[in-house]
Amino acid sequence: MSTTAERYRRACDYLAACMIYLRDNVLLREPLKAEHIKPCLLGHWGTCPGITYVYNGLNGLVTRTGRRTLLVTGPGHGAPAVHANLWLEGTHQLYDPSLSLDEAGMTELIKRFSWPGGFPSHLSPQVPGVIHEGGELGYALSTAVGAAFDDPELLVACLVGDGEAETGPTAASWHANKFVNPWSDGTVLPILHLNGYKISSPTIYGAMSDEELISFFLGAGWSPTIVDVQQTTDPDLSLAQALDQSMAETRPMLIVRSPKGWGLPGRDTHGTPLAGTFHAHQVPLDAEQLPLLESWLRSYRPEELFDQDGRPFEDLLGLLPKEDLRIGRVPQANGGALRRDLPMPPLAKFQCEVHEPGKSVQSANQVLASWLAELFGATEDRRDFRIFCPDEMESNKLGAVLDVTDREFSWPVRGYAEHLGPSGRVVEVLSEHLCQGFLQGYLLTGRHGLFPCYEAFAAIVDSMVNQYAKFLKMAAEVPWRAPVASLNYLLTSEGWRQEHNGYSHQGPGFINNILTKKASVSRIYLPPDVNTLLHTMRHCLAGTGRINVVVASKQEYPQWLDFDAAEAHCLAGAGVWQWAADDPRPEVVLASAGTVPTVETLAAVSLLREHAPDLRIRMANVVDLLALAPPDRHPHGLDIDAFTRCFGLEMPVVMAFHGYPSAVHEVLHGRRTPERFHVHGYQEEGTTTTPFDLLVSNNMSRYDLAADAVRRAWRTKGAPIADLLIARRDAVLQAARENGVDPPEITEWRWST
Amino acid sequence: MSTTAERYRRACDYLAACMIYLRDNVLLREPLKAEHIKPCLLGHWGTCPGITYVYNGLNGLVTRTGRRTLLVTGPGHGAPAVHANLWLEGTHQLYDPSLSLDEAGMTELIKRFSWPGGFPSHLSPQVPGVIHEGGELGYALSTAVGAAFDDPELLVACLVGDGEAETGPTAASWHANKFVNPWSDGTVLPILHLNGYKISSPTIYGAMSDEELISFFLGAGWSPTIVDVQQTTDPDLSLAQALDQSMAETRPMLIVRSPKGWGLPGRDTHGTPLAGTFHAHQVPLDAEQLPLLESWLRSYRPEELFDQDGRPFEDLLGLLPKEDLRIGRVPQANGGALRRDLPMPPLAKFQCEVHEPGKSVQSANQVLASWLAELFGATEDRRDFRIFCPDEMESNKLGAVLDVTDREFSWPVRGYAEHLGPSGRVVEVLSEHLCQGFLQGYLLTGRHGLFPCYEAFAAIVDSMVNQYAKFLKMAAEVPWRAPVASLNYLLTSEGWRQEHNGYSHQGPGFINNILTKKASVSRIYLPPDVNTLLHTMRHCLAGTGRINVVVASKQEYPQWLDFDAAEAHCLAGAGVWQWAADDPRPEVVLASAGTVPTVETLAAVSLLREHAPDLRIRMANVVDLLALAPPDRHPHGLDIDAFTRCFGLEMPVVMAFHGYPSAVHEVLHGRRTPERFHVHGYQEEGTTTTPFDLLVSNNMSRYDLAADAVRRAWRTKGAPIADLLIARRDAVLQAARENGVDPPEITEWRWST
Repeated sequence: MSTTAERYRRACDYLAACMIYLRDNVLLREPLKAEHIKPCLLGHWGTCPGITYVYNGLNGLVTRTGRRTLLVTGPGHGAPAVHANLWLEGTHQLYDPSLSLDEAGMTELIKRFSWPGGFPSHLSPQVPGVIHEGGELGYALSTAVGAAFDDPELLVACLVGDGEAETGPTAASWHANKFVNPWSDGTVLPILHLNGYKISSPTIYGAMSDEELISFFLGAGWSPTIVDVQQTTDPDLSLAQALDQSMAETRPMLIVRSPKGWGLPGRDTHGTPLAGTFHAHQVPLDAEQLPLLESWLRSYRPEELFDQDGRPFEDLLGLLPKEDLRIGRVPQANGGALRRDLPMPPLAKFQCEVHEPGKSVQSANQVLASWLAELFGATEDRRDFRIFCPDEMESNKLGAVLDVTDREFSWPVRGYAEHLGPSGRVVEVLSEHLCQGFLQGYLLTGRHGLFPCYEAFAAIVDSMVNQYAKFLKMAAEVPWRAPVASLNYLLTSEGWRQEHNGYSHQGPGFINNILTKKASVSRIYLPPDVNTLLHTMRHCLAGTGRINVVVASKQEYPQWLDFDAAEAHCLAGAGVWQWAADDPRPEVVLASAGTVPTVETLAAVSLLREHAPDLRIRMANVVDLLALAPPDRHPHGLDIDAFTRCFGLEMPVVMAFHGYPSAVHEVLHGRRTPERFHVHGYQEEGTTTTPFDLLVSNNMSRYDLAADAVRRAWRTKGAPIADLLIARRDAVLQAARENGVDPPEITEWRWST
Repeated sequence: MSTTAERYRRACDYLAACMIYLRDNVLLREPLKAEHIKPCLLGHWGTCPGITYVYNGLNGLVTRTGRRTLLVTGPGHGAPAVHANLWLEGTHQLYDPSLSLDEAGMTELIKRFSWPGGFPSHLSPQVPGVIHEGGELGYALSTAVGAAFDDPELLVACLVGDGEAETGPTAASWHANKFVNPWSDGTVLPILHLNGYKISSPTIYGAMSDEELISFFLGAGWSPTIVDVQQTTDPDLSLAQALDQSMAETRPMLIVRSPKGWGLPGRDTHGTPLAGTFHAHQVPLDAEQLPLLESWLRSYRPEELFDQDGRPFEDLLGLLPKEDLRIGRVPQANGGALRRDLPMPPLAKFQCEVHEPGKSVQSANQVLASWLAELFGATEDRRDFRIFCPDEMESNKLGAVLDVTDREFSWPVRGYAEHLGPSGRVVEVLSEHLCQGFLQGYLLTGRHGLFPCYEAFAAIVDSMVNQYAKFLKMAAEVPWRAPVASLNYLLTSEGWRQEHNGYSHQGPGFINNILTKKASVSRIYLPPDVNTLLHTMRHCLAGTGRINVVVASKQEYPQWLDFDAAEAHCLAGAGVWQWAADDPRPEVVLASAGTVPTVETLAAVSLLREHAPDLRIRMANVVDLLALAPPDRHPHGLDIDAFTRCFGLEMPVVMAFHGYPSAVHEVLHGRRTPERFHVHGYQEEGTTTTPFDLLVSNNMSRYDLAADAVRRAWRTKGAPIADLLIARRDAVLQAARENGVDPPEITEWRWST
């Protein structure tokens, strides 16, 4: 006996199977022939029937409850199932009339899948309702939770495959419920889909018994319900009942067991088992098994599903929620269209007064935090700005934010706590993966955010930001997708100041990773003081479609630029600091990028004034790293005039850089004579020691820079001066090592001309 | 009433506190003065007492059972506790006589901690018994499991802090028990240490109730026992009992609750709460609270712990296991000393016969797999070689290995499976984090291994390999550490051939990350065919102390070099392929690195022969990417003669590179006139489509390369030829897009001169 729900699923499964195989004859009006088969069979069948099973179950839930529902599909390789559902619910047609609810539209859909220029084999930003690609597994659940924050009306259903469940980021995400507030946030409904296999092995969660699963997820704080399609005569009814029961819980969760490739023949013509095994994962039958393929496809009885014109029978469409609640049309999945500009508090109030460069010291982060606190105040009613941080707000000197909003935490805490509450808008979890996933989900649904992170540990999310950059790049190519707010990192507790920690906390490689991204997406800023940081951060929070990496310091350092000069400098991206050194005919340029490198470079200029007063110097600072790139390689690249104004044409440039020198080397590629850039930066040397010792270990102390500059400019004539500088360095170093602390000569240094 | 165990812990806690604060007067023989205090107070106190509590408990267990025990300390920032225990057990003295069991040794230990040139604030390779730094949290448990594989005599205790427990990699690791075989592997004893707080927030696991914890870990397959030091009158006895009970279980696990900073005063002089709160995390009292600091330190009553000479009282030492079983001396923690060279099967048997370059096709991975299968056979009794893979053995065409050894899996599997068994030596888990952690633990304890991985997803472990590279670099500086086997990646299912998947599976950035590592550690190989892959892999598996990235293809591609030529080419790192093109006065060099780029480059040479027969060409191939680096920047850098032989001095070089062009740009820095290198590579373009379309999207097809070469060499004269080539490219592309498959012109191309 076929229920309508079963036929609805059959229609989707049929379409999904056709997407993998057919280029024509999509209603099987004639016997299947080789010419109907796509020349390349690409796609993943195994997970598709399970996705449709859940999608259809959710359709019922939405119909019954009227609650707007976003579906985050972890197994993005099951895209055919989602496409089939989107076509049936008419969402595809809405975005692209050629995907009409008839044979022509069906043919177009089926042919377009996994075809050059068509729909990719995985979910992608081209697909309505999608905020998650699902190619690199692990991030569905944290993305779903991010989408739910501050949107109490929303239900976010999240399908997690049992392959994905083995990943670390997913494993961490099961505890995200400790943060979500059931009243001020949306509801997250995780649906763990167990079909028992990944590519060719059994899965961990698939091998767990029902008792183990229930115990595990109860312990994690969910109210889990298991639906096993092989243990029920009416899988759709069982699912509907389970959904209704679950949704009565505060933290609902479903575990769905269904055979991998559900609906396939038991074995292929060679006798290899298919249905319910990993052999169903990708393309279960090759084109040479045409008769079996045909009989499998015909087993869905398309004639019971689609009318003469290829339109699904009305009773199937009758299962759908009303138009504006159909899952693929959820407005949150095109968050850019919901995004509102942030009400930016004026910066000027927070500016650092700089009457004379380098005379006063301040913690850039601490000042920024006051401005951010005001931003939290300004968005208190809108609740569309959040900070996600791996437990480093206080450590990064951003604590002022916590005076205006709590850390959100919804579990009972035994004992002492500060700034903790159920409706705070800072989430602190010691998982960069979760911070990243939460923020992605939050941004993609139309909100704004910031991710402050120890710089060395940002690399933990290298691969996540890789995938997010891909999502942004593709989304920008989709006409109906409005751009979402930029993803902003504040990388701090930088390696140059990690006295408490040491070698493991020294790692500026996140910059290198971001440099591999498209120029349309990636931005890297190294504001050297308070005012440049303020201007940079406002710019980043106002923007859309970018990944902005801002590297700044929490430590107290000299302040260089006043408010207006800082703004002009940030706009330019890089420039000569005339007040420091700007000889019209320089023999050497000293350049810097980053807080600590800028301090050292200016100190090097001082040393050169003292030891080589005749040396003709220019000093340039780079706040936007991509300003160094040739303008044909990055839109922020300085034009040749501006570049020459900073760095000249022929003379040596001694540059102190915050990160690995290789990052500068690669950005410079395409500029003429890059060999003349001698970049000092982090060289993977040093551990727990004094800041000066660390600089010396990496050949980036003021003495090293000054010595290099005079040697490059004056060669033989400069050598004795360089030797003298190095000797002075070594004396300072010895004092530091003996006393366990840097001498005042270093720690109390202030700029003076 | 003080038990000996309590006094033992008091001694350790006292020493740990002193390490953070004191430079002198370490036995408090005189009143504490400012001059006794270190000028910089660095370290983390909060976790120390808990570490000592567990360490001492394990000492008792070792004494009672006589079982060799390796301790992996997740909270590596609690290094003072480990140092204290190592000093007391005499291990420190064994490795460094100046750390003797008397006042002088105690002073040296205390002063050396977190002092420039001394012990870093975190655990490090300098510390005996340590195989895990613990600075970047998350990898302790997977490292511990890796150490346990194939070592059934060993107990690996693993301390996991509740901060670390929030990370994804740790969360995934709780399921590592699904792989460990209780009979042929060692026992892993996870000890989850809950002190309730991370830097300044409560922890997730700390907030979970006992019922939730038990339910969660039972569900994960452990037999958890909770010890709460505040719920017992004799914490040491309770721990001993819990340990003994646990160890009777197949999968023992402890959960220890103790207050953060246990032993601190309740509040500081400003009234801030200390003991049992996050304020105890780092340095709880500043030097200005000297009287309180003194009273805190004196509360440990050092006079009850150490004799006149500063030697611990004999009864304390009586608690220690016998000498050779002391935890810090476990031989597995200096695995290099246990490592035996692998019995490498001869390669020649597996060679691909190449009578004429480019005439036959083969899958490089498939051939490699046969050799690896033989290697598994040769190590069957030794059991010191493993493969860890994120469920991609079959997909990466390495299935031949599974004919000789199973995938290890120790949970009952419902339903169908292939090549699965409890004592296999392949571990397939869909978590790159776990693969990496397992392999690190396996290597560091003296064994060998290989990590085959989809190239795009290797970036998931960017940060882990960052930390591992740091560990290797520091370990190489420690005289008593013998080098461990190199960590070998086989990156495959490369982005150029991801028809089933698409954009998310295209990402060669792991290379860029490895390039940021020390030259002493990092190696990147791109063998273009079977014989070069065989030679490369044997070299990598024979080596020590390196991180080797080998990029190879699973797809069938033309074969270029015969067995001997391949060996010579691999030894050289890069060379001219004379048989392809070697004009004595070349106008342009065509260079390649990687399988697909090499095919395209040789096809480009063919095209140029056809379209610009007068063009004088040289063709060079790079198998060792670092051969491009200047020899003063990398030991593999070609000397200037060899470099010139390949790439000339002045002429343009059109290079097809497997990864991001930026990787080549940065490696070339320091070579003269790098501007003449025009690198084609992956530019973040393309998605699910044909291989040729993907190449064109990224400007790396044979036509693009040939057109670029003729244009660079001949400028105006070359332009019409280049236009012709591009027109031909577009015709081919259009055919591919229309038919959904590349034409035979591309897929059946074979080299001919």
